[in-house]
Formats: sequence, C-alpha cells, structure tokens
Amino acid sequence: MSGPAPAVARVRNAVRPGLQSSPAPVLVAVSGGADSLALAAAVAFEAPRAGVRAGAVTVDHGLQPGSAERARTTADLLAGLGLAPVRVLPVQVGTDGGPEAAARTARYAALAAAGGEGGARIALGHTLDDQAETVLLGLGRGSGPRSVAGMVETRAAGGVTWWRPLLGVRRETTRAACAAQGLPVWEDPWNADPAYTRVRLRSEALPLLEEILGGGVAPALARTAAMLREDLDALDDLAAAELGRLAGADGLLAGPLAALAPAVRRRVLRSWLRGAGVPDLQAVHLAAVDALLTHWRGQGRVDLPGGAGVVRASGRLVFLPPDARGAPEHASPEERDT
Amino acid sequence: MSGPAPAVARVRNAVRPGLQSSPAPVLVAVSGGADSLALAAAVAFEAPRAGVRAGAVTVDHGLQPGSAERARTTADLLAGLGLAPVRVLPVQVGTDGGPEAAARTARYAALAAAGGEGGARIALGHTLDDQAETVLLGLGRGSGPRSVAGMVETRAAGGVTWWRPLLGVRRETTRAACAAQGLPVWEDPWNADPAYTRVRLRSEALPLLEEILGGGVAPALARTAAMLREDLDALDDLAAAELGRLAGADGLLAGPLAALAPAVRRRVLRSWLRGAGVPDLQAVHLAAVDALLTHWRGQGRVDLPGGAGVVRASGRLVFLPPDARGAPEHASPEERDT
Repeated sequence: MSGPAPAVARVRNAVRPGLQSSPAPVLVAVSGGADSLALAAAVAFEAPRAGVRAGAVTVDHGLQPGSAERARTTADLLAGLGLAPVRVLPVQVGTDGGPEAAARTARYAALAAAGGEGGARIALGHTLDDQAETVLLGLGRGSGPRSVAGMVETRAAGGVTWWRPLLGVRRETTRAACAAQGLPVWEDPWNADPAYTRVRLRSEALPLLEEILGGGVAPALARTAAMLREDLDALDDLAAAELGRLAGADGLLAGPLAALAPAVRRRVLRSWLRGAGVPDLQAVHLAAVDALLTHWRGQGRVDLPGGAGVVRASGRLVFLPPDARGAPEHASPEERDT
Repeated sequence: MSGPAPAVARVRNAVRPGLQSSPAPVLVAVSGGADSLALAAAVAFEAPRAGVRAGAVTVDHGLQPGSAERARTTADLLAGLGLAPVRVLPVQVGTDGGPEAAARTARYAALAAAGGEGGARIALGHTLDDQAETVLLGLGRGSGPRSVAGMVETRAAGGVTWWRPLLGVRRETTRAACAAQGLPVWEDPWNADPAYTRVRLRSEALPLLEEILGGGVAPALARTAAMLREDLDALDDLAAAELGRLAGADGLLAGPLAALAPAVRRRVLRSWLRGAGVPDLQAVHLAAVDALLTHWRGQGRVDLPGGAGVVRASGRLVFLPPDARGAPEHASPEERDT
C-alpha cells in the first residue's frame, strides 16, 4: 500500500490535530484557489476519521462575469470530495475602503453568518506565505507588536470560531497537493493584480527580501510571529489579572498600578478604558492617562474620545463617563505624591 | 536672535536629555559620514551646557588607500568642533564572517577599549533608518521577537555603555544638519556597495516597501521596535524574578514553573541554563527541557550542548554539569505527575 503524495500528507497532518481536539463541525471556506482547495480535500479526508462533520461554503462576490457559474462548479467539486453540506453564499460587495477591503468585509460577514447558524468552525486556507505577507503589512502600519504577530490558528470572533490550520504550510505545498489529487485549481485573477498591496508584497517585496537576505524569509517571518504571539498573550493575560486585582467600583488603585512594568501598565489602562466603552483609543490618550501615574504633579482631567475622561483622585484613577463633566464628588486634587 | 536651522535643532534635541541625565563623559564615535558628524556637532554644542565632558574617536580601518590621512582630517574637524580629547584608533581588520562583519568587530573592539579607559559612554550615530534596516535584518533571521526589537538607546556591554541618541532621527535630517553647519561629509564608498546586505536593504528593499505600503515604513518599523522592546523587557524582568523565586541549590521547582505562561517559562529556562554555562542553546534544546515540565511522563535526561544535561527528579529540574554523566544521587524517576 503506497501512502499519499508528500504534499497531500503534509496538508492532512496540518488539519488532523485540530479535528481531533474538538468535535465542533467544520465549514471550509473555499475560493477555488489551491490553498483552500487543498484544505478542503484534507478536511474531507480527515474529518470522518476524527468523527467531525465537515461541510464547505464558497462565496460568490458577483464581481466578475460568470462568477455564479464558477461558484457552482466549485461547490460541485466540494460535494464530490464528500463534504456536506456545501453552500454557495452570494454577497453584495460595497465600496468602503476600496474593492479589496470591501470584498473581504462582505465575504467574512457571509462566512460568519453561515458558521453561526450551525455552531461551526470556519476553516480558512491561509498559508505560511499569507502569514509572512500579513506580518509585512503589519510592519508597514507600525501600530505595535500585535500588528506584526500575524494571524492566530484559532480565534473566536463575531460569534464564530475561525480556524487556520495551514499557517505552517507553504503555498507551494498546497499547489502540489492539489496537483497530486487532480484537483482543478482556479487562479483568481485578483491574486495577480498589482493594484493590491498584498499581491505586490507577494510578488515583489518578499522575493526581493529573499534575494537580499539569503532565503527563508517567509518561514522566518512566520516563526518570529508565532513566538511573538506567545509573548504578547502572556503580557495580555498578566495585564488582565492585574486589572482584576486593581480595579474597584471607585476606580483603579494608582500606587500599585504605577509600580507595574510599563508594558503591563499600558495594557491594564487600555483594557480598563476599552471596557468602559471608550472608542478609538490612541497612543496619545493612553500616554496622557499613564502620565497621571508616572508623572503625577496634580494635573487635571485627561479628555478621551467620545467625551469621557479620567482624573486622579484619592489615590485612584477615576473614569468619568461622557455625561459626567467635571470630577466626581470625592475628587479633590491630590498633593504631588511622586 | 535667530535660532539654529531646524535640522540642527532636531539633532541637538535628540542628544540633550541623555547628556542632562548622566554626568558620565561621552566619546562620540565618528566615521566622517553625515550621521556621526551631525551627532558629534550636536554633542559638542550640548555637552558643555550639560556640564558633561565630550571627546571623539575615529577608527582607521586601514582598508582603503589614504584611510590614515582621512582619519586625520576627520580628527581635525572634530577637534575644531571643540571636542576633546580626539583620537584616531587604527585597527587590524581580520576576515571572520566577511569584510563587513570583520570591520565591524574590529571597530567595536577598538571603541570599547577607548571607552573603557576613561569610563566614557560611546555615542553612536545610528538613525531611525538604521533602526529600520536592523529590524528587517532581524526579521530575515527569524530568531524571535528580540531580533526584531532593534537597537536600544542605551546599553551596557563589554564594560562600556553604548549610547544611540539618534534612533528617532531620520538620516536625511543628519545630512541637512551637516549641510546647515557647513560640515564636510565623507561618503563611505562601502555605504553604496551592493555587496553588503544592509546597503541593499537600504537602497532596494526599504524603498520598495515604502512604495508598496504607501510610505512611512521606516518610522513604522522603528515605532513597532520601540514598543516591542518595552514588551520584551517586561517579560525578561518577570522571568528574572521568577527564576529568583524558583531556583535553589538543588534545582528549579517543577510545579510552579510549569504553571507559568509559556513565554515566561521558556525565558526562565533559558536564563537558568545560560547562567549554568550552557553554550549555544537552541530552541530545540529549550523545547526538550520544557517538555520535562509540560509533557512529563518519566522521560530521562535531556542532553544539552557542551555535554551538560537536565533531569527531572524529586519535583525539580536538576542541572547536570558536563562531567556528571548520569543522574545525581537523589534522582529517581518520578511517577507521571501531570
């Protein structure tokens, strides 16, 4: 008995642990490209062995002539793999944020709705190469460590669980797996359109970095992102525990908060303020609230987006909701205490 | 009275806090390029106002014809700025790791020796653009979050303190500052030699990323690196505290160690093993030692580089130095306890 082709085995190995560790049904999101098709084939093979129900969905964005027919062809292919149910999800793509972002928004909303109905995990075909592109995109944003930590394998959001079992698998492996199984891959013309940032990162920036840095850049980015997620998760958990310890009905205890490491302290403040409903919190706001702890010299209210504010009073940081202009009753400016 | 040109003011602002916060004398390391020359001029201006003594050194690598004469010219320029003492440090460049790395090694050794003699801080002219290149280089290595955290402003190593006050200043600002002060900039031909990885990152990769990602990439990389350093410092400090709490003469307490977040646990193990003198510790070794905590099923000794090992015995991780083959006296394999 000869086993499956190496690429097929590799994709199956990638999905197996996730299928064995949870009985939740899986819905594979399939574009028809090599990544998601290889994922669908692997899930179709492994899910019955793990006792997990597995279906699939394909989104018809309605943006290209013949898209409905193509979605139908993909759905037939998926049903032929043994996935059930298989559904085509037609969506209306808006214009917000440009065509790439608008299509993405519509697609994820449709997937979340489809997954939510049946309590399913949505399996997505993002590969190690997608992860590397995501890290580079995050670096370009410069919005901090979390933005370069890449995608996580399992994430609950919007009422469904998103599952990306192929983050350690190369894109070329998914292509080889499809070829070995005779699966007809549909090449989305968008994937070659240089108008899209991600396409240019894939086709220009990563190859140049590979050439300059001597190869292995995509796995290096993915490896660093994985270690980084572990580090950031530890800090987030630590901050959550500190927030629980220091928060009371009358505010956050300023003294013990000031004694925390800056990385933990800022996370505590961010969680606290987000939890209180402050929208659109920026680094500059966080820094001003942090200064009430680290550079306390009796300064007044710090204004926050949405009309809320924070004051330091009686050794505590006190949150003032949007309607409460001015300090609370017990707030009298403290003496300079640092 | 008209103030200095904006670029000059910006470089001076960058060095001022560091000069005001420490009375240690400063030695500016100057290549003759715009970055280090602008730094030297700013330090020469600000140091006397902060009551800090400031000299300069320039390294003669002896690799190009006329290098001794050029070093002499640079030294005269530095003395003319009012820096004292000014010294030329001739070095022998070896061949290890290629010409770029060998020159760097020789240069830093000479600088450390010069700084160590007088208890001085060595000021280096690395800019925000150098920082961005360093982060990209680190990403290519894929050796984890610290490798993308970039350079720190102040770091004690090798008996001296390295000070990089211009990490928030753009390279173009240092050029403008030199031009505004009429300082003759020497363009190191190596800085344009595409044989060097850093030169290609600077001249090809970063401009391409700027173009694809819409600008601001270098500041974005530097910003993320700064936040990342804060995060990693917090985790390192936390791990150091846990190591102090859990380490005893007879090993590390396994139970409480296993309960730590993975990011903290791995750091504790790494510090513990490095402190015990294990050389060249790799992720695979750390994972094997970690498995004694998280996947304990009575497994035996974990071998480490240099002939050392670790066993789990009596609820502790026990370090076995290179000469001690076999388990210590009190070591009897534990029952599976997790």
